[in-house]
Amino acid sequence: MPLAPSRDLETVPNPAPERPYRIRMVAPEFTCLCPRTGQPDFAAIEIDYVPGPRLVELKSLKQYLWSWRDEGIFHEAVTNRILDDLCRALDPAWMRVTGHFKVRGGVTTTVVAQHGTPPATMPEFPASQEC
Amino acid sequence: MPLAPSRDLETVPNPAPERPYRIRMVAPEFTCLCPRTGQPDFAAIEIDYVPGPRLVELKSLKQYLWSWRDEGIFHEAVTNRILDDLCRALDPAWMRVTGHFKVRGGVTTTVVAQHGTPPATMPEFPASQEC
Amino acid sequence: MPLAPSRDLETVPNPAPERPYRIRMVAPEFTCLCPRTGQPDFAAIEIDYVPGPRLVELKSLKQYLWSWRDEGIFHEAVTNRILDDLCRALDPAWMRVTGHFKVRGGVTTTVVAQHGTPPATMPEFPASQEC
Amino acid sequence: MPLAPSRDLETVPNPAPERPYRIRMVAPEFTCLCPRTGQPDFAAIEIDYVPGPRLVELKSLKQYLWSWRDEGIFHEAVTNRILDDLCRALDPAWMRVTGHFKVRGGVTTTVVAQHGTPPATMPEFPASQEC
Amino acid sequence: MPLAPSRDLETVPNPAPERPYRIRMVAPEFTCLCPRTGQPDFAAIEIDYVPGPRLVELKSLKQYLWSWRDEGIFHEAVTNRILDDLCRALDPAWMRVTGHFKVRGGVTTTVVAQHGTPPATMPEFPASQEC
Amino acid sequence: MPLAPSRDLETVPNPAPERPYRIRMVAPEFTCLCPRTGQPDFAAIEIDYVPGPRLVELKSLKQYLWSWRDEGIFHEAVTNRILDDLCRALDPAWMRVTGHFKVRGGVTTTVVAQHGTPPATMPEFPASQEC
Amino acid sequence: MPLAPSRDLETVPNPAPERPYRIRMVAPEFTCLCPRTGQPDFAAIEIDYVPGPRLVELKSLKQYLWSWRDEGIFHEAVTNRILDDLCRALDPAWMRVTGHFKVRGGVTTTVVAQHGTPPATMPEFPASQEC
Amino acid sequence: MPLAPSRDLETVPNPAPERPYRIRMVAPEFTCLCPRTGQPDFAAIEIDYVPGPRLVELKSLKQYLWSWRDEGIFHEAVTNRILDDLCRALDPAWMRVTGHFKVRGGVTTTVVAQHGTPPATMPEFPASQEC
Amino acid sequence: MPLAPSRDLETVPNPAPERPYRIRMVAPEFTCLCPRTGQPDFAAIEIDYVPGPRLVELKSLKQYLWSWRDEGIFHEAVTNRILDDLCRALDPAWMRVTGHFKVRGGVTTTVVAQHGTPPATMPEFPASQEC
Amino acid sequence: MPLAPSRDLETVPNPAPERPYRIRMVAPEFTCLCPRTGQPDFAAIEIDYVPGPRLVELKSLKQYLWSWRDEGIFHEAVTNRILDDLCRALDPAWMRVTGHFKVRGGVTTTVVAQHGTPPATMPEFPASQEC
Repeated sequence: MPLAPSRDLETVPNPAPERPYRIRMVAPEFTCLCPRTGQPDFAAIEIDYVPGPRLVELKSLKQYLWSWRDEGIFHEAVTNRILDDLCRALDPAWMRVTGHFKVRGGVTTTVVAQHGTPPATMPEFPASQEC
Repeated sequence: MPLAPSRDLETVPNPAPERPYRIRMVAPEFTCLCPRTGQPDFAAIEIDYVPGPRLVELKSLKQYLWSWRDEGIFHEAVTNRILDDLCRALDPAWMRVTGHFKVRGGVTTTVVAQHGTPPATMPEFPASQEC
Repeated sequence: MPLAPSRDLETVPNPAPERPYRIRMVAPEFTCLCPRTGQPDFAAIEIDYVPGPRLVELKSLKQYLWSWRDEGIFHEAVTNRILDDLCRALDPAWMRVTGHFKVRGGVTTTVVAQHGTPPATMPEFPASQEC
Repeated sequence: MPLAPSRDLETVPNPAPERPYRIRMVAPEFTCLCPRTGQPDFAAIEIDYVPGPRLVELKSLKQYLWSWRDEGIFHEAVTNRILDDLCRALDPAWMRVTGHFKVRGGVTTTVVAQHGTPPATMPEFPASQEC
Repeated sequence: MPLAPSRDLETVPNPAPERPYRIRMVAPEFTCLCPRTGQPDFAAIEIDYVPGPRLVELKSLKQYLWSWRDEGIFHEAVTNRILDDLCRALDPAWMRVTGHFKVRGGVTTTVVAQHGTPPATMPEFPASQEC
Repeated sequence: MPLAPSRDLETVPNPAPERPYRIRMVAPEFTCLCPRTGQPDFAAIEIDYVPGPRLVELKSLKQYLWSWRDEGIFHEAVTNRILDDLCRALDPAWMRVTGHFKVRGGVTTTVVAQHGTPPATMPEFPASQEC
Repeated sequence: MPLAPSRDLETVPNPAPERPYRIRMVAPEFTCLCPRTGQPDFAAIEIDYVPGPRLVELKSLKQYLWSWRDEGIFHEAVTNRILDDLCRALDPAWMRVTGHFKVRGGVTTTVVAQHGTPPATMPEFPASQEC
Repeated sequence: MPLAPSRDLETVPNPAPERPYRIRMVAPEFTCLCPRTGQPDFAAIEIDYVPGPRLVELKSLKQYLWSWRDEGIFHEAVTNRILDDLCRALDPAWMRVTGHFKVRGGVTTTVVAQHGTPPATMPEFPASQEC
Repeated sequence: MPLAPSRDLETVPNPAPERPYRIRMVAPEFTCLCPRTGQPDFAAIEIDYVPGPRLVELKSLKQYLWSWRDEGIFHEAVTNRILDDLCRALDPAWMRVTGHFKVRGGVTTTVVAQHGTPPATMPEFPASQEC
Repeated sequence: MPLAPSRDLETVPNPAPERPYRIRMVAPEFTCLCPRTGQPDFAAIEIDYVPGPRLVELKSLKQYLWSWRDEGIFHEAVTNRILDDLCRALDPAWMRVTGHFKVRGGVTTTVVAQHGTPPATMPEFPASQEC
């Protein structure tokens, strides 16, 4: 499996470490390559986590996601790899990564993987502003 | 019940077999025939599964779905048959197939069938990017 | 309470009787009359069920729903009656009927009634294609 | 707290009293006055209930809601008062009233209150036709 | 961490203190500054709570939210701070604050934090009017 | 061609006869019958006109549209007939009638006919509130 | 025809009188009464104009629109009256007033009237942000 | 260029031949084959015309469109061919055919062709109900 | 009228000066202050122009718009001022600036002003991707 | 200005060269690089043209658009360059290219350029299926 060229993720301290709150980050401009044909793939990457001691720094996350631009990798593999890389850097209480891949051959694919179990005290995102 | 002409589904190894992650594939361009009148029916087929040892290969799935184009079969039957065929090829931990059929006689029909029980540790798809 | 003129619902055998799958049919062109004023009422009727030994035949369902066109009946009563008639014809494992009535006097009314308990093994409809 | 001028709510018998079904009524044209400034407030009032022996008559409900037009009352108070008035008239198995108030000072407010506990056998409204 | 210049939140008595009802307030015009670059950030702040003895007064809430306009603070920190400030002023039975931050560097961030546990008897907001 | 049972359209005087203003009325609950099969058809009827000396009275229009409920007539014919009947009753400066018919056989049909020429001084409907 | 109780509209000087620019104001919370039945009517009022020497002051416009709350007047008449009152106060180069009235008897009514001719040099509103 | 197997289009007389009215028919379930790869293509076909002496019969149109199901033909060619076939059968005053083809290789294609010039007296479709 | 603190707009050469093409830039995060009350106002600013010899540099535009954050100015005045400032810096063939201001007192205001006449050869933005 | 590595666009003969019909192709997955920062930019490219003797072949267009993936170029320049390249290959009667670029620094940019004048006999795309 190919390695992402830049795997350095900068982190910042969690300002409320005693509270199991939740952060969702959606990056709709992700692109990598198909490992079979070399053609570009496009996706939105959605990260949802309950932080541990540290948060991911936004600019660093953006650059990490850019680093996949020239890698050939399957949808299922890259989603699991992003989850692995973020968990290694952040040690979250819980994390879920979703890859929303654009249509290929008339088929749209979504892959979701999580690390850990959702804490019982984790808040739900409200429905009213999610769209 | 008619047989699909092409039932060969190519598979690829699961890159993260130890993790109960989840894959959803939506194919909005499915068509078959009405077994009573021979008229064309149209549907979106949605596949949602927790993989076992193997994943379905995207191009092969596309061709499998095309193979129903000239078959006469009821909505309920074809949805269950697609589930059977995919489970035989993939041996998933859990799978759900949904057929979203277009309006006929002023009525829209949706059929959903599943194989196995959703694993307790299976992640939910996030609500924010589903539309 | 008025009787629907045509109460004959044709059925077909369930092609997958061993599996607790689920069927949803939405008929957006239902009309009956107000029992007080004789004015037309309009609704979408939504039927959701886990089949028993038989399925409802689509053309027959369409004609059954048309048979209410000249009947004067309250929203709550007709929703419950459609549920009764379908359960008598189909003997489903579970059924839910919803009447989405259009605005009258500035108020929109929805009535939902079910027969039996949702089976624990019943699949959920996926969220991604419901809109 | 101000009194609504017309508190007479006409009711009709429940045509299916043995079944715990559910009724939702949405009235998007509710208006009352701000008790501090006298300025008009606008809201949609949503009523959701499992009926007891009687249903609310639609025209009567419309007139009851109009009766608040010249009353000065806070968002939280009027939502609770509508719930009280309807429960007194209908004795429902369960009822929930929601006030969706329009933006004031750049803030949109929604208030929801319920009477009783949702019955375990109460049906869910289907997702597919709610929007 | 910077202090909000105006932290005085006016409150009013809860008109139905015996009932665990629920209030949601959405303020789509929140702005503060990035603590690293000084650039403006924009968000919608959503507050959802089961009141205790007192409610937040709407005009006071509006002014409290304005008071963050010139503060430099991270997304995660300001969301937790608004929750802290509101809980100190209102002593709610339960409260959840969500910050829906606009896109920065191609990434949209949502932060949600709650105080206390949702009461078992707390009503759900209805789905039909949330969009 | 069948005759509508009720062709009496009540009118009221135009309160601003000197100004070429414009009125649009949309009735989404129109139903008639297919002249070939007797099956019900459904449509939204949209009326757009610059009044002459008289306006159509709203309740009378509603009852006129109901009078088509049991008539068998083609989409193209009923749209032209509604235009004829309204022009005879109102003598408008200009009128356009549109029938938005629901899907039949997988095809949605819209028919639009006008009487007279749009006056050069006729205002346009604004785009911002049309959806 | 009834008189609006408050017809005083405050104005402010036009800051760019040499340029034929354009202003659109939409007030979605308008209510008056039906002159036949006394029942409340609801509308959105949309004002679009090329200013002359003066602009309407926003708070004054809001209070002017409130002043119709207890007046009984037809849709067509009130739309023309608002146009008359605003033109008398502002002497615009051109003005168009639209009343978007909510459904009554299953029919939605929109009334649009204008004063003067749209100046040839008047800018169009862009399509991209109108929805 | 391939021939459509069924080119017989049934017509009916125009009930209002003296008036230049307009008919739009949208068929969202069109499918043919790619002439290079044999893979299925999907489109919505939209027909808009001012009739001459005859109208197209709806069921016949549906069957004509089905007749392309097994033909291999480019997007641009089939759109022009449908226009040719309909004009030969109907001799319309004006006709426009649009093919809205689904995404292929990440690109969505729309083709529009017309026969004749739009008559100056042809009515416009209203904007308010087009979506 | 207050002056914007930063009025320096960086420009870059037009890469296709011989062609009357068109550029639209939408900035949804504009904020200034109400000159009467000091309260914050929010708007989306939309700029549409046919360039002359130079284009506005994106980062510089962003900073120019930020410079209004602490200025008290009416909606109509700031829209005209932004147009003046941009025309002075860019000398465009044509420019239109639109301010889409958020609701205040229940009223939403849009202001549009243009400089010059739209060139006859200016392309239209396509409708299909504007939403 | 950078050169696109692959500028070879395959073409096919126009099957209806005598008719001024129109083709629109939308490619939502375009990406290039910012010439100042090297950061990736994303856009949808929309091509709308009346063909001359030849059409662009779809697969070739897809590969041409991919060839910009590693080029650093401004939004305005790349839109004009795509127009130049396509006109050189196709010699269309008229062509318009639009680049819908994603938000950068809180600003969304759209660039539209055309070659030639829209032919008077060119058909309009219908509004009903454009969204």
